[in-house]
Amino acid sequence: MEIKTYLDEQRQRVEKHLADLMLEPVGAFSRHIESMRYSLFVGGKRIRPILCLAAATAVDDDEKTYQRAMPVACSLECIHTYSLIHDDLPAMDDDDLRRGKPTNHTVFGEAAAILAGDGLLTFAFDLLSSQVSAGINDSVRIRIIQTIARAAGSLGMVGGQSLDMLFAGEQVGYEELRSIHRSKTGALITASVLSGALVARADEAQEEALQAYGDHIGLAFQIVDDLLDVEATTEQLGKPAGSDIKSDKVTYPSLFGMETSRTMAREAVQEALAALVLFDRKADPLRALANYIVERKK
Amino acid sequence: MEIKTYLDEQRQRVEKHLADLMLEPVGAFSRHIESMRYSLFVGGKRIRPILCLAAATAVDDDEKTYQRAMPVACSLECIHTYSLIHDDLPAMDDDDLRRGKPTNHTVFGEAAAILAGDGLLTFAFDLLSSQVSAGINDSVRIRIIQTIARAAGSLGMVGGQSLDMLFAGEQVGYEELRSIHRSKTGALITASVLSGALVARADEAQEEALQAYGDHIGLAFQIVDDLLDVEATTEQLGKPAGSDIKSDKVTYPSLFGMETSRTMAREAVQEALAALVLFDRKADPLRALANYIVERKK
Repeated sequence: MEIKTYLDEQRQRVEKHLADLMLEPVGAFSRHIESMRYSLFVGGKRIRPILCLAAATAVDDDEKTYQRAMPVACSLECIHTYSLIHDDLPAMDDDDLRRGKPTNHTVFGEAAAILAGDGLLTFAFDLLSSQVSAGINDSVRIRIIQTIARAAGSLGMVGGQSLDMLFAGEQVGYEELRSIHRSKTGALITASVLSGALVARADEAQEEALQAYGDHIGLAFQIVDDLLDVEATTEQLGKPAGSDIKSDKVTYPSLFGMETSRTMAREAVQEALAALVLFDRKADPLRALANYIVERKK
Repeated sequence: MEIKTYLDEQRQRVEKHLADLMLEPVGAFSRHIESMRYSLFVGGKRIRPILCLAAATAVDDDEKTYQRAMPVACSLECIHTYSLIHDDLPAMDDDDLRRGKPTNHTVFGEAAAILAGDGLLTFAFDLLSSQVSAGINDSVRIRIIQTIARAAGSLGMVGGQSLDMLFAGEQVGYEELRSIHRSKTGALITASVLSGALVARADEAQEEALQAYGDHIGLAFQIVDDLLDVEATTEQLGKPAGSDIKSDKVTYPSLFGMETSRTMAREAVQEALAALVLFDRKADPLRALANYIVERKK
């Protein structure tokens, strides 16, 4: 399959639904809702929602299943966006730009940005429990909510960010690096895959396989992010690749070098593909996504 | 009934369950978990969880129903605590003290405080979807999650805080004041009452009555908060009551004066009590709570 066309089409479908489902910037809270919409629609690859939809399709390619997974997919993007807003805050990574655009707090102020994040996180659980998700069986919905809450919470994404802040400026080893990534990025990626599988009523073997797939692509995703961080620097600043690895954050390239890191990413993708062996051609989008993750240029 | 004894006993039961249900500060995330526990256990009246439990009891006074409502009650306290942590941040109200103790960011730093709030908010939805709430029917659980997510979100508590920040320093009228309070404080108080009623399988008439009860005590609660703010000042600073109404925030006393505000609070409580007319003695805790809210001294 042509991955670029597939990703473009999926991204557009996700963005159309996000626009439909998201609160409208009218009434007393319009400024606050505008601030949430700004970050939600400022761009992004929409990888998490697409993984959710592709996992649902891998189990059951009925269009109705895809449609049922859509609000879950959107809730994952809300959670991802909230995490970026809070990560960019002055008290955290203090970033002015994200995807080449001013970060939320730069545009709306710090207080509004904190609240935009809080609002998006809460809205994710609103979506998962509202009429728009009513096509999903209630006990499945509860499992999906649990899967996402765990992955996004203190033993997952939030915990990972807290480790990342805690270890900033410190020389940590591979164990710590792996632990930060697994919780900060990996947990929500795996939850995206799993929640799609749950919508499609995956059996136990399928769930287990998709859990493994999610874990491996989560790792690959992170290694490639680290690699791209170095390579972008090369291009933009004209420094030799690898020389600008941030001194205050341990990365895969800083621990293993560029070549070994690339090999590790490729191996992780191979393991992700191997986990899909029990799936037929319906899992081709997941396979293409795994390859895309390691080959992407941004 | 003796309200002081009742409140003490309920508070202790809630705190015991909070301690049992909350994550332990061990492992990689221990510092982050410590920061959540700090604010969760630094004190507080536990009004929202107690309202949830009392509403459940008003509908069905079986101990099993009370026990089933307990994780829901605890999730409400997690959400309330997260909102206090974020409200106190330097970018928001910039408060160093809360309940006479250093605020979260004063102790753990700003980044950790943002994450403690994020973690507690997410943990609330974890509790509502995890095994600890499995005694509640799944479709009821979905309704409870929806009720709480709506009340806590951008059209409720988060939206109210955004209005509060937006209007800070501006002279707003009664309409705006009412709108801020209804969303910032009232919504979660009403949701606390309603979610308890849902656990106990309230019928439609009971739900409606408890919704009205919640709305009225939410209003009373806020007016009394404003009054106490003035009176505490009188005591602590030795200024005449009413002279220290913060110039940058409109309050009930600043709009209506002390006496009229007191009358408004009493009237709201009377309406709350009237809403309970269809309930028998099982609603006595709710009645006592309504009276307590207007008579409390802190």
